[in-house]
Amino acid sequence: MAGKDAAIRSATSYDVARRAGVSQSAVSRCFRPGASVAPATRAKIVAAAEELGYRPNAIAQGLITRRSNMVAVIISNLTNLYYPEVLAELSQRFSARDIRVLLFALEAESDVDEVLEQIWRYRVDGAVVAARLDPDQLALFAKRRIPLVLYNRVGEQQPAASVCFDSTGGARQLVGGLLAAGHRHFGIIAGPEDSYVGEERANASADALRRNGLEPIMVRGTFDYSSGDRGLRQLMLRSDSKLDAVICANDTMAIGAIDCARHAFEIAVPERLSVVGFDGVEAARWAAYQVTTVRQPVRRMTESAVEMLMERIERPELPPERRLFGGELLLGQSARLELP
Amino acid sequence: MAGKDAAIRSATSYDVARRAGVSQSAVSRCFRPGASVAPATRAKIVAAAEELGYRPNAIAQGLITRRSNMVAVIISNLTNLYYPEVLAELSQRFSARDIRVLLFALEAESDVDEVLEQIWRYRVDGAVVAARLDPDQLALFAKRRIPLVLYNRVGEQQPAASVCFDSTGGARQLVGGLLAAGHRHFGIIAGPEDSYVGEERANASADALRRNGLEPIMVRGTFDYSSGDRGLRQLMLRSDSKLDAVICANDTMAIGAIDCARHAFEIAVPERLSVVGFDGVEAARWAAYQVTTVRQPVRRMTESAVEMLMERIERPELPPERRLFGGELLLGQSARLELP
Repeated sequence: MAGKDAAIRSATSYDVARRAGVSQSAVSRCFRPGASVAPATRAKIVAAAEELGYRPNAIAQGLITRRSNMVAVIISNLTNLYYPEVLAELSQRFSARDIRVLLFALEAESDVDEVLEQIWRYRVDGAVVAARLDPDQLALFAKRRIPLVLYNRVGEQQPAASVCFDSTGGARQLVGGLLAAGHRHFGIIAGPEDSYVGEERANASADALRRNGLEPIMVRGTFDYSSGDRGLRQLMLRSDSKLDAVICANDTMAIGAIDCARHAFEIAVPERLSVVGFDGVEAARWAAYQVTTVRQPVRRMTESAVEMLMERIERPELPPERRLFGGELLLGQSARLELP
Repeated sequence: MAGKDAAIRSATSYDVARRAGVSQSAVSRCFRPGASVAPATRAKIVAAAEELGYRPNAIAQGLITRRSNMVAVIISNLTNLYYPEVLAELSQRFSARDIRVLLFALEAESDVDEVLEQIWRYRVDGAVVAARLDPDQLALFAKRRIPLVLYNRVGEQQPAASVCFDSTGGARQLVGGLLAAGHRHFGIIAGPEDSYVGEERANASADALRRNGLEPIMVRGTFDYSSGDRGLRQLMLRSDSKLDAVICANDTMAIGAIDCARHAFEIAVPERLSVVGFDGVEAARWAAYQVTTVRQPVRRMTESAVEMLMERIERPELPPERRLFGGELLLGQSARLELP
């Protein structure tokens, strides 16, 4: 049995060719989709391949077909609560199409440069990018004709295929409901400066408030629980405790702010302070928080991202397209909202 | 410029060889670590490669060196709170060693069969497996000489390299502390049947109780929040509400059980009911829960897994080795514990 084991390990197209008494290129053709091989030759090759436990090497096949059947997924903030769901959905959807995911998990959005070299070297067929790309980086993908789909980001100076959540629409819904319920002293806990999503949510909320003659106090967080806690403390100081509503750029910071209000300041949420978030992560629904938030339709968004990328791998000439998904307002117990 | 763009896209070792006036194999050697090329030839090749924007193809290089510089990470339960942290740590540690992660995110632990074919085809150098492998599947890795390290699993009938958290030790600490504080009516919310970790934690807890003459009531969950809630309801029914302590096989179920006790049954936690978990995920530290739990040393465990796998890729003959990491007892506010 040792001989058989060794064969399984080391069988190459050369071994199969020898056993079948055909040329190595005939073996390659036999396993290449669409290539022609005489039926009798094919039968001999398949028999030899089965005997030797030979499997065509996906990577070698990729070199021939110019497809690696791998896509890069570039994602940051994996330890935050939203992205693992996105990654699991992307991975399962690519997998269902027989495409593998080469994962690039960044510590910060702006670390993209470090992984680009790797992406070129592995000749991925395409990429889904949930991290910030500057125009130069975007241009490099175009130059190398590697199709990409931006996830919750847009091409900042040149158009790119993208799937986005309509943060602006979500911000308007939240602000509208909070204003209608009588809130007047607003704080905003924004995301880090290098986050496109965080900036969009904070700016859209601030704009909606300013159009109603109100100026919010803005502080920055880093999307995690402790920065929600810290953000609320800063807001309390800067507002002389007059704060009656806090808009957080994601749910995790909203959860941190709710806990801080209740446990550190003994402020009743939502009775004395309304706190809202964005994303609709699972923890936002937990009984202790029940965060009022805008839920991103993750399934539809990831399905679209995968579909758009696969289309562009087949047809690289397709024009940029932006798909914008509206969110669903989830009325929790963390804010007093009045809806029209 | 269009010409240059096209060149960047299509430059191959053949193009470089032509431009440099050398053989294609000289170009290959030039970019293969350790291979010898005359300095003058190397200079010509590097100049031509730079002019053409040629980069050696990592995959083609892999075919030559028999290394793909890719490892598979097989992980399930990505939307639970513990695994994203593990995945982020693994990904960054492999990346620091210039190794890429091919991700296989399973919906259930027992879905491994579906991805094995892909793993063989992509000729990964090795695998970290945080999902259940049966002895046959384990044997397939051995047969193909693909080194693997099991993460929080062990080879069930044959030894395999593994990095494990000492769930049994953790369970004993928790049970000891709960017994010392006077708890007598125990419930256990175990994990799903196909989870090695879940079974180990539930069984070790039950054994420790039985050694003290107590028989716990056991129910099963699926590691998520709502199954913690459901588990507590079942335990309350089956214990005639006499329950005074609940051991959950992970923190997320503990959080679900705490919320259920407080909000559905109006039972004070920890005054009337102690609830403990396992893992030490970030949410377990949130002010509303402060779960008493045993924290896995994720950094040290992932560092070990990466190190053990890299060693075995270099030296496949290394014997199986099991590294068992003790956890840190985190005294939260969800249980009354008395420590020796």
